[in-house]
Amino acid sequence: MPERLADLVDPAAWTCPAPLRDQGVVVMGHGGGGALSAELMERIFTPAYGNATLSGLADSAVLELGGARLAFSTDSYVVRPLFFPGGCLGDLAVNGTVNDLAMSGARPAYLSSAFVLEEGVELAVVERIARAMGAAAETAGVTIATGDTKVVESGHGDGVYVTTAGVGVVPDGVDIRPQRARPGDAVLVSGPIGLHGVAIMSVREGLEFGVEVASDTAPLADLVAAMLAVTPDVHVLRDPTRGGLGASLNEIARASGTGVRLQERAVPVPDAVANACGFLGLDPLYVANEGRLVAFVPPSEADEVLAAMRAHPQGAGAARIGECVAEHPGMVVVATGLGGTRVVDLPLGEQLPRIC
Amino acid sequence: MPERLADLVDPAAWTCPAPLRDQGVVVMGHGGGGALSAELMERIFTPAYGNATLSGLADSAVLELGGARLAFSTDSYVVRPLFFPGGCLGDLAVNGTVNDLAMSGARPAYLSSAFVLEEGVELAVVERIARAMGAAAETAGVTIATGDTKVVESGHGDGVYVTTAGVGVVPDGVDIRPQRARPGDAVLVSGPIGLHGVAIMSVREGLEFGVEVASDTAPLADLVAAMLAVTPDVHVLRDPTRGGLGASLNEIARASGTGVRLQERAVPVPDAVANACGFLGLDPLYVANEGRLVAFVPPSEADEVLAAMRAHPQGAGAARIGECVAEHPGMVVVATGLGGTRVVDLPLGEQLPRIC
Repeated sequence: MPERLADLVDPAAWTCPAPLRDQGVVVMGHGGGGALSAELMERIFTPAYGNATLSGLADSAVLELGGARLAFSTDSYVVRPLFFPGGCLGDLAVNGTVNDLAMSGARPAYLSSAFVLEEGVELAVVERIARAMGAAAETAGVTIATGDTKVVESGHGDGVYVTTAGVGVVPDGVDIRPQRARPGDAVLVSGPIGLHGVAIMSVREGLEFGVEVASDTAPLADLVAAMLAVTPDVHVLRDPTRGGLGASLNEIARASGTGVRLQERAVPVPDAVANACGFLGLDPLYVANEGRLVAFVPPSEADEVLAAMRAHPQGAGAARIGECVAEHPGMVVVATGLGGTRVVDLPLGEQLPRIC
Repeated sequence: MPERLADLVDPAAWTCPAPLRDQGVVVMGHGGGGALSAELMERIFTPAYGNATLSGLADSAVLELGGARLAFSTDSYVVRPLFFPGGCLGDLAVNGTVNDLAMSGARPAYLSSAFVLEEGVELAVVERIARAMGAAAETAGVTIATGDTKVVESGHGDGVYVTTAGVGVVPDGVDIRPQRARPGDAVLVSGPIGLHGVAIMSVREGLEFGVEVASDTAPLADLVAAMLAVTPDVHVLRDPTRGGLGASLNEIARASGTGVRLQERAVPVPDAVANACGFLGLDPLYVANEGRLVAFVPPSEADEVLAAMRAHPQGAGAARIGECVAEHPGMVVVATGLGGTRVVDLPLGEQLPRIC
C-alpha cells in the first residue's frame, strides 16, 4: 500500500550541511524524527529490509493477517529524566504505541514490553515504571500480553530503556495514511501543542518558566474512535511527537504531494510554551507532543469532526488550524499574524534529544 | 489460557543467597533467564501489568484478535560482540523472535524492529546489522513491517541494541504451551546443544578451543511446521536460549507440575562444546542455543515426529533425550552415564551475560 520511501522523501530537498552527513557515524539527529531520521530510513533500513510493507511514513503498518486487518507498530523509549511532570517513561511507552496504532484508525488491543536495564538500577525504579505502564494500559484499554528483560553491565546502558510494540484491529472502511491528504482537506489539531517537550526541557535543564508545565502524554485511541463515529473517511491522522507539528505536517505534505497552509493565529500554543520557546529560541511548531493528534478531514465533514473532538476529554482544546492546498506541493507554509507567510521546513533532527 | 505466574513459579523453591535478592538493585542475573528473571517477572511485572494474558512461561502469547488466533512476542537483543562466528546481532534479533512465535506453533508473518543507537557508532555497523536482519527475515519468510530508531548520547548506550516483536498465525487445532507437558511425553531436542553460547564465549573471552565454534542461530518455524504436519498434538515447544536446556526443562516441569528425566548419554553435546565447558567449568545443559528447540510429544507420536525432524535441515541432529514423568514434579533429573542421577536445577541467572 505505501509507496517506497524513495518516492516519498526527496533527498535533494534536504538542506543540511554535507559534513554532518558524510562523517559516517550516528549523530543525535538520527533519532530526532526529522530529515536525518528519514535519511537513515531511506539509505539503510528500507534497502536492507527490501520490502514494500514497511509502514512508509505512517506511524503504524496495516497488515492482513489470519483474515484480520491489523495495525502493528513499535517504538523504543529512552526519555531522560525517567520521571517528569505529567508522566514517566512508562506512560510514554504505553501511550506512544497506543497512539501510533490509533493513527491508522485501529483500536489498540495488545502491547508487548521489552526492558533493557542497566546493572545497578534500583528495582524500585523499575517497579515504578512498570506500574505506570500497567496503569496506562488500563486507561487505554489495552493488555500487556508479552515481554522480555535484558540486563547490560553498569556503564553500558542508561538506567532503563523500554520498547513496546502493539497490535490492534483496523475497522472496516477505514483507510488512514499520509498519502491520502487531498487539497481542500481541513487540518485539525486536537489541543494545545508543545507541552511535552517543554515539560522535559524544564526539568532537564533546570529551567523555570513561572508555572510548572506538565507533559500532555495521553492515549488517543478513544478520541480517534469518536472522530471515526462521525465519518470513517478521515484521510490522515498523525501524532506529532519528535519534530513536533512541523515535522508531521512536512511528512504528510511530502507523502501526499500536496501543500499545507496553516493560520498561525489558529494554532493553539499555551502561554507557558510560548514563553519557554521565546526564552530558548525554539519554534513551538517543532516541539514534541505526546497526547495530541493532527487530522486531515474532508472539508464537508470538518465542522462535525471538530465538534466531536471538542466533546471528548482528549480533544477539548481542538482547533482548525489550516488546510491542505494544491499549491507548493510537499511544502508547509504558515500565514503569520502580520499578514506574511513563512515556510516551515522539515527539521534536521529534534531540537532537544531524548524527549521520548 | 495461561495461569498466573504465581501458580507456575514457587518462590519457596528458589535457592539463591538472600543478600543478592535483598540489595534492591538490578543485577546481571535478572536478565539471564533463570530464577532471578522469574523473580523479576513475578514480583514486579506481573503485579504491575495485572492481567491474565501475560504469556506465562511460554515464549509467546496467544491471542484472539479480529477473528484470528495470533501469537505475539518480543525480545531485546544486547549481545556482545555484535558480530560473532555464525551470525550477528541482526540474525539473532530476527531468528529469536521468529522462534518465540514458532514455539506456540505459529507461522511467523510480520516483525517490528526498534534500534537504540549510541551516538558515534559507525553507520556501516548499523547497515551491516540491518542487512543481516533483512536476509534473516527473507530466509524465515517474514516481513519487517514497521520500525523505530532512537539515539542516545555517547557513553549512555552501548553501540546498538535491537528490539524485535512479531506476530504470526496459530493454526487451528494447535495448542502448544508448557502447561501441556504430560507424564509419558517423549522429550526431543532438534540438534546438538551449546553452540551459540560457546561461540560467543570464544570470541568474547579470546579463548581458542582448537576449532572455531559457530553459533547455531537459525529460524525454526519451518521445522515446527514439519513436526505439526505429523501431528497437531505437539504438547510443548521451547527454544532453549538463555539458561540453556536446563532452564527450559525446569520451566516446563514447573509450569506443568510434572517431572523430567533425561538420559545424559542421549543429549547431543558436540566435542567442541564439551571441551569448552570442561575447560571453563560450565555445564552444557545451561549454555545458550539460538537455533534449537526442545519438544514434548505424546509417546505414540514420538518416533514419527523425530523422523520428520531428522528429515529437515534444522533438525538433522535431532534426538530423543528423555521423558516426562509423574515422579518428582517440578524437577529435572539426569540419569548419568555412570548409572547415577543428578538434579538439574533452574539456574540463578545465565552463566555468561549478554549472549543474546
